[in-house]
Amino acid sequence: MNEERHNGSAIAILTGRSIIGFASGNGNGTVFHGFDPQTGHACGPAFTSADAEDIDHAVGLAAIAAPKWAKVSGTARAEFLRAIASRLATIALPLIERAHLETALPEARLEGELARTCHQLRLFADAVQEGSWVMGRIDRGDPKRTPTAKPDVRSMLRPLGPVVVFGASNFPLAFSVAGGDSVSAWASGNPVIVKAHPAHPGTSELVGHAISECVHSYGLPEGLFSLLFDVGISVGQALVKHPLVKAVGFTGSHAGGRAVMDLAASRGEPIPVFAEMGSVNPVFILPRALEARGEQIVSGIYASFTLGAGQSCTKPGLVFIPEGNASENLMRHLEALVSAAAPFSLLTAGIRNAFTRACDDRRRRADLRTVIAERDDQSHDSLRVGAALLETDVKTFLSRPELSEEMFGPATLLVTHSDKAQLVEIASMLKGHLTATVHGTEQDFQEFVELIQILETKVGRLVFNGYPTGVEVCHAMVHGGPYPATSDGRSTSVGTQAIFRFSRPVCFQDCPDQLLPPELRNENSLGIWRMVDGAMTREAITRSH
Amino acid sequence: MNEERHNGSAIAILTGRSIIGFASGNGNGTVFHGFDPQTGHACGPAFTSADAEDIDHAVGLAAIAAPKWAKVSGTARAEFLRAIASRLATIALPLIERAHLETALPEARLEGELARTCHQLRLFADAVQEGSWVMGRIDRGDPKRTPTAKPDVRSMLRPLGPVVVFGASNFPLAFSVAGGDSVSAWASGNPVIVKAHPAHPGTSELVGHAISECVHSYGLPEGLFSLLFDVGISVGQALVKHPLVKAVGFTGSHAGGRAVMDLAASRGEPIPVFAEMGSVNPVFILPRALEARGEQIVSGIYASFTLGAGQSCTKPGLVFIPEGNASENLMRHLEALVSAAAPFSLLTAGIRNAFTRACDDRRRRADLRTVIAERDDQSHDSLRVGAALLETDVKTFLSRPELSEEMFGPATLLVTHSDKAQLVEIASMLKGHLTATVHGTEQDFQEFVELIQILETKVGRLVFNGYPTGVEVCHAMVHGGPYPATSDGRSTSVGTQAIFRFSRPVCFQDCPDQLLPPELRNENSLGIWRMVDGAMTREAITRSH
Repeated sequence: MNEERHNGSAIAILTGRSIIGFASGNGNGTVFHGFDPQTGHACGPAFTSADAEDIDHAVGLAAIAAPKWAKVSGTARAEFLRAIASRLATIALPLIERAHLETALPEARLEGELARTCHQLRLFADAVQEGSWVMGRIDRGDPKRTPTAKPDVRSMLRPLGPVVVFGASNFPLAFSVAGGDSVSAWASGNPVIVKAHPAHPGTSELVGHAISECVHSYGLPEGLFSLLFDVGISVGQALVKHPLVKAVGFTGSHAGGRAVMDLAASRGEPIPVFAEMGSVNPVFILPRALEARGEQIVSGIYASFTLGAGQSCTKPGLVFIPEGNASENLMRHLEALVSAAAPFSLLTAGIRNAFTRACDDRRRRADLRTVIAERDDQSHDSLRVGAALLETDVKTFLSRPELSEEMFGPATLLVTHSDKAQLVEIASMLKGHLTATVHGTEQDFQEFVELIQILETKVGRLVFNGYPTGVEVCHAMVHGGPYPATSDGRSTSVGTQAIFRFSRPVCFQDCPDQLLPPELRNENSLGIWRMVDGAMTREAITRSH
Repeated sequence: MNEERHNGSAIAILTGRSIIGFASGNGNGTVFHGFDPQTGHACGPAFTSADAEDIDHAVGLAAIAAPKWAKVSGTARAEFLRAIASRLATIALPLIERAHLETALPEARLEGELARTCHQLRLFADAVQEGSWVMGRIDRGDPKRTPTAKPDVRSMLRPLGPVVVFGASNFPLAFSVAGGDSVSAWASGNPVIVKAHPAHPGTSELVGHAISECVHSYGLPEGLFSLLFDVGISVGQALVKHPLVKAVGFTGSHAGGRAVMDLAASRGEPIPVFAEMGSVNPVFILPRALEARGEQIVSGIYASFTLGAGQSCTKPGLVFIPEGNASENLMRHLEALVSAAAPFSLLTAGIRNAFTRACDDRRRRADLRTVIAERDDQSHDSLRVGAALLETDVKTFLSRPELSEEMFGPATLLVTHSDKAQLVEIASMLKGHLTATVHGTEQDFQEFVELIQILETKVGRLVFNGYPTGVEVCHAMVHGGPYPATSDGRSTSVGTQAIFRFSRPVCFQDCPDQLLPPELRNENSLGIWRMVDGAMTREAITRSH
């Protein structure tokens, strides 16, 4: 691999080849390019889709790496994750430059996303180094119990095996090659095979080489990481169907996620799929809050639904607002913001086409008021679109299920309602979403407590007097929610609880102490929290009561 | 409902009707009977399969009960679970008498199973009363953080909604109406609809009324429990497909479990299925242990594989033993035990037919040595069979995949091997099992550490110098294992970790304290363990750092 000096740091020249452990892909698959959404023009180099041999090679290496990586200590896993964070920080300038070229996301946003990606790596590193995440449980035996002796039983979480991660288009760093899925899979002891998103192949390769170098320099098993390119869907399908693959992490569209779910469920050995498929993220502005700080709220909503050109899975795409003069004024305020907005560059031609189709469709409807900003140019190649504001009332909204569907891009739908009963009815009919947001005063919350209780059953995260975009990466975060927001509402793809997705409990009955994993031995040399005979403790124990 | 005095306790006369909340089923479905496996004769009363109206009624009530039960405190949930245990203890004599009639399982075994069922109810009661199982996590906010304020984020596990439980034939109490699936679903805040197993309808109805009385007498929501009868599979199918059902617990055959999995995955809204589908539970007798205490080990294996007529999901159905004179003697010892064994009554005609077919098939094979005890009668109605011991070598075993399949009933397969390499090869090729067992000395374990490491990846529970049957109900137990042992190797159906199956994390961002569930409020009035800013504590907190 040749290197060039770039912004003061050594950065690999892009090869356009998949990364299979420490080697490059074969290069017999279809060739494709990344492209600049601002111009629609292809940018070099040419990337080669992985072929069947590449897939088998990557998965085979991962299967060999799995038992080795499973035995690696939390401290060593943490070193690996921190090394990736350091390496990414080192190549920040060329990485952000390339990500900006391929996604048109603003550089400041990408800087924030890189910081978040590195923070995430370090947060998981801290969690696995501390070690209590394995949920160690020990029930000590009692040989004298009658009628039968009580065995000594100890359990902890163990890895699943090779995990396939599908990179997302809309977060080229935080939900892509070194994103939350990869990090949580590695942290819990699994090798990772990433299927790169074709919308940012260069960014993916840069991150891929950074990871690969860390695997190599720490002497870790080669199959711990591979990166496969594909311009189509066949590589992803083959990975999901591969018998040695044990779980899948996916961030993307509903259609894509459901296809992966169905494929995984139809395997001879079905495997878990954790697909985050986006949602509309309803916002409820309650009457007193509207009165007290309506303009501030709608300005915040405008900033939130246009953030990243409205291509966040947590974009507020549906806003419920009480009808009346105050709302009218606020809607005019929002319309003015939308009309004045500069055009937004979308990530791919597919996203642009779907967005403009949805805008055109809605513009033609008599039952919607639409304010759609003008694009600044009409070039066919341009991925730039104007922001869109749609308005209707509850009656229309309830009779038109298609209005509940996600519009990926800078658009939101305002729905005016007349009373609490309507809001409760709407909330009851909602499908699963990643988030719901409620703006209210203390008195509003008391009055609308039923609404809040219903919303809790529909989402992974309930936001109060805030905005759903900008997902905090922390221990308590839940970036999940009932289907169709995700494939498995029992999981989160952001925050340290994401680690639970790629692990399973294993128990050891009457196992000699020295054969146990360190987490379950009497001495508790790691000092982790364990449940011993039903009580949490960090103490060492003796074998019997 | 009429009552009669029976063994000193008031027990409901069986009605043969489904229990829908506080009412009885319609009675328009197919009529069927329980039967006595010892004679094959039907026993009264006639039971009526639920019809479509019953199903809708039961699920509708459960959906109404769901938000109410979700709000009930851990202490009140615990009272309900303990009340069921007390009620079952009160009707122990008639309950065991009926269960014995319908299953032919020995009364002593059923007494043990009832004790286990009550212990399980009380263990979950203790866990939900203590309350820390919800995995409360709090990351406090920091309004001064730059560039963006850090929100206050708090998460905990919340219930899924109505859960459907399929009772198992082989544990008419512990894996049936008030078994582990129901208990863990209630404990985590979900209503339960049980599809009774048609092999013990009377036992199911007795337990069902006991539960229903507890729901009623504690003033709990009617839909917290329903019990539906069906002689066929249509009621189960309709329940799994019902849009208001949110999860399924199943214990039974692989074919049945996979059908439920496929049905749930094909729904518009796929739902999680926790199916425990049995396994062959391989046992490895290592050379030095064989030498030191071979006779004791094989006697233990005999007791384990004939326990409950070999109808346990943890029955050791495959035993690997080093070839040589010592093994020859032990096999002759085991053959003598099998030949002398009294016949065993199986649970259903279906199980009996499958078992005798499998025995006949194996008896005809030149590559197996078979010792099959005689049945004591040849009546077509009898469900009694003789125990079966099958023997072969590794080479035959590896070339005949069908020999790895579960034989449900009192049978096991002994496989002689010549060296460690063969054992490692076999272990690598194993599918997922609930358990694996290793008998060895300290030196054996050192020598066979690779075998043990491979086995850990194949099972939910690894047993050392013991026997897999007799699953301890405790905090650390894992009664699970990779597919095909279960539908979801990331779960257990026994022990308090079973509660995690029917719950999902929900997070609250910047939520006013009084709107939070008690588990997440600053004061921590429940005194539960929570992760606050990454560290475990039971202390109260203040809002900000």
